[in-house]
Amino acid sequence: MRSIRVELGERSYPIHIGSGLLAEIGERCAEAGFPVRSPLLIVSDSEVAPRYLPALEAALRDYGYTVVHHIIAAGEASKSLAVYEEVMTTAIQAGLDRRSAVLALGGGVVGDLAGFVAATYMRGIGFLQIPTTILAHDSSVGGKVAVNHPLAKNMIGAFYQPSMVLYDLDTLASLPARQVSSGLAEVVKHGLILDKDFAYWCREHAAELLALQPEALGYALERGCAIKAQVVSTDEREQGLRAILNLGHTIGHAIEAVGGYGVFLHGEAIAIGMAGSALLAVKLGRDKSIYDETVSMLTSLGLPVTLPAEYSEDELMEAMMHDKKFKEGRMTFIVPDDIGTVSIVDDVQASLVREVIAQLKKEGSPW
Amino acid sequence: MRSIRVELGERSYPIHIGSGLLAEIGERCAEAGFPVRSPLLIVSDSEVAPRYLPALEAALRDYGYTVVHHIIAAGEASKSLAVYEEVMTTAIQAGLDRRSAVLALGGGVVGDLAGFVAATYMRGIGFLQIPTTILAHDSSVGGKVAVNHPLAKNMIGAFYQPSMVLYDLDTLASLPARQVSSGLAEVVKHGLILDKDFAYWCREHAAELLALQPEALGYALERGCAIKAQVVSTDEREQGLRAILNLGHTIGHAIEAVGGYGVFLHGEAIAIGMAGSALLAVKLGRDKSIYDETVSMLTSLGLPVTLPAEYSEDELMEAMMHDKKFKEGRMTFIVPDDIGTVSIVDDVQASLVREVIAQLKKEGSPW
Ligand SMILES: NC(=O)c1ccc[n+]([C@@H]2O[C@H](COP(=O)([O-])OP(=O)(O)OC[C@H]3O[C@@H](n4cnc5c(N)ncnc54)[C@H](O)[C@@H]3O)[C@@H](O)[C@H]2O)c1
Ligand SMILES: NC(=O)c1ccc[n+]([C@@H]2O[C@H](COP(=O)([O-])OP(=O)(O)OC[C@H]3O[C@@H](n4cnc5c(N)ncnc54)[C@H](O)[C@@H]3O)[C@@H](O)[C@H]2O)c1
Ligand SMILES: [Zn+2]
Ligand SMILES: [Zn+2]
Repeated sequence: MRSIRVELGERSYPIHIGSGLLAEIGERCAEAGFPVRSPLLIVSDSEVAPRYLPALEAALRDYGYTVVHHIIAAGEASKSLAVYEEVMTTAIQAGLDRRSAVLALGGGVVGDLAGFVAATYMRGIGFLQIPTTILAHDSSVGGKVAVNHPLAKNMIGAFYQPSMVLYDLDTLASLPARQVSSGLAEVVKHGLILDKDFAYWCREHAAELLALQPEALGYALERGCAIKAQVVSTDEREQGLRAILNLGHTIGHAIEAVGGYGVFLHGEAIAIGMAGSALLAVKLGRDKSIYDETVSMLTSLGLPVTLPAEYSEDELMEAMMHDKKFKEGRMTFIVPDDIGTVSIVDDVQASLVREVIAQLKKEGSPW
Repeated sequence: MRSIRVELGERSYPIHIGSGLLAEIGERCAEAGFPVRSPLLIVSDSEVAPRYLPALEAALRDYGYTVVHHIIAAGEASKSLAVYEEVMTTAIQAGLDRRSAVLALGGGVVGDLAGFVAATYMRGIGFLQIPTTILAHDSSVGGKVAVNHPLAKNMIGAFYQPSMVLYDLDTLASLPARQVSSGLAEVVKHGLILDKDFAYWCREHAAELLALQPEALGYALERGCAIKAQVVSTDEREQGLRAILNLGHTIGHAIEAVGGYGVFLHGEAIAIGMAGSALLAVKLGRDKSIYDETVSMLTSLGLPVTLPAEYSEDELMEAMMHDKKFKEGRMTFIVPDDIGTVSIVDDVQASLVREVIAQLKKEGSPW
């Protein structure tokens, strides 16, 4: 088992990564400080629950816990205030008290929703993340929890740290291949922003990662989580540095918004976005190799790096202008200076971004 | 103008109390750190907005702020997730950004709802309280924000401190007399738990307080806020000491739940609850004068101290058992040791509480 600690003063917590961890859930909940007399609520989704919920509940009950569960429909649409209220109803009816905890068993959707429930039930109770996607190595670390508003994604939420993250690699075996690549996009992103060696390591071990080979996967998730944890420790509430985690996300979010959620998976959209950021870097005078290397890393992981022709430049630009990352109307981008280093560039001209979007539509090298 | 500071480390904030403060709102928002380029959202209700919103908006616009407002129907029913979502929609449509703030202009309902919006819009933006009821001297200090779930009051919320509380005494002039007495119940509660002299001072100056005489009122709100602030500073997240603020609330909440919200106002219900706590104290061996003095203080402020005969003991007991203040099934009460001092008593027998409830129905002295 690999363990990392997210350093956040009195809100610090451990991340455990390894095989067979679900069986230890009782001990882990006790270690996290949840008393056996207070009921636990597991939130999971319709894809994950049939596979892993029975064993998890059995292990908790064996340990002496009272457990209830709430299963949401798989997919982004469940990250809504309506579903949030339903989970709250389950929590109240089950008699969760102030020492109870919510356990998120699933991907980022389950984690974000369950985390917002934990943050706001009786003004905050215990919270434990059990991520079952690769992408959730990102969403389960850092304490951002949220639901969507019909007008904007992740608009309603809080900063709320879990007491622990328990990453059982065995649960990843059932993950569809496209979800694997999508999750690896955020893994390699962590290399691209802060760790050159790790970014190259990802490309070298791409085949093992795509095959979910435990040794490579365990290392990749450990490094990914560790880099994210390091950034979050420095800037818990996203006042500055934490913005670098948004590499590729401004364009990526616009692609998701314009294409409709689910056309591109999140990791696929930000892979195109990271290719776009690399293009922007070159336009701003950085070395052309940044673009070539970025694209080669992403394609080695089975990720897209070009934009289908039907995406309208006007609509993408419009979507970006509404993105919450633009304080007071200026356009801010995370721009690579090299593989493994980025800058926050504050006043990127909209015309340059439009050029990047247009070039992202060209197959092959855009030069 | 009187000013108090709530000491909470980097979340510390000032409370300003005085006449004519609404006119200074622009300067105050700047002092609170809200940039003029980010839109402000004022939340108010249908009773308060017609009286004070136009002047407030005008003062903010004069200062250079962009202002939008959202007016809710007056009353507890607006403290719901449905109304919360509507306010969120207004905030998004108005383009509130991460440096924007929500201003709560109203009583505790507006403050609790608007505070929960501020706490969770984009994971937390600025928040300023402009209380317009006496009761809100209590709700605007301490950072508890919440909405109700159909199954339980204040069940969904957060701890979220405002940047400032601006208490303009002039707005209290339009407050209905019953609301004045109800608010004074929480004022005298602050004396009963921690300040004997202040509790007696309230009885002595009851007539001036009921007449909203500015000098007496200003002092009473200052002392009330200061005592609340002192407790909150020691125990921001209600781990221990803060429980003493619940004097009278266990019985009071049960009365509100059984009678239906709005039959008794909150302060009226907790006045009966405080009489009940004093009765309990005497049953547990404390001096009988505690009950007599408590009742005399409450009646001097126009508050009820007995329970109408139609309230069922069974239903009240049942409601108390469901109260969130009972960890793991035991009954906890805040019991006065004297006027101005209380203890947290952990294992009060249910039969004793039932006796208290029965005696609260007797008119005049229960002995
Ligand atoms: N909080 C954050 O910091 C943060 C960061 C990144 C992304 N996110 C959020 O995370 C969400 C995306 O996360 P995601 O990609 O994990 O999405 P997801 O939770 O929707 O999971 C993707 C799909 O895989 C299925 N699935 C999950 N685990 C499985 C398993 N082990 N076997 C088989 N199927 C499985 C799910 O049912 C779902 O259909 C988005 O809502 C995004 O906003 C949050
Ligand atoms: N957050 C906390 O710590 C805390 C503490 C105590 C109470 N509360 C909450 O506060 C709420 C009760 O507060 P409240 O008593 O202020 O209720 P309220 O906000 O409903 O106000 C009472 C009534 O007075 C009207 N009103 C308000 N100001 C007025 C004015 N200046 N002139 C004329 N009418 C006016 C309102 O429209 C309403 O009809 C409850 O929801 C309770 O849960 C919260
Ligand atoms: Zn992402
Ligand atoms: Zn109260």
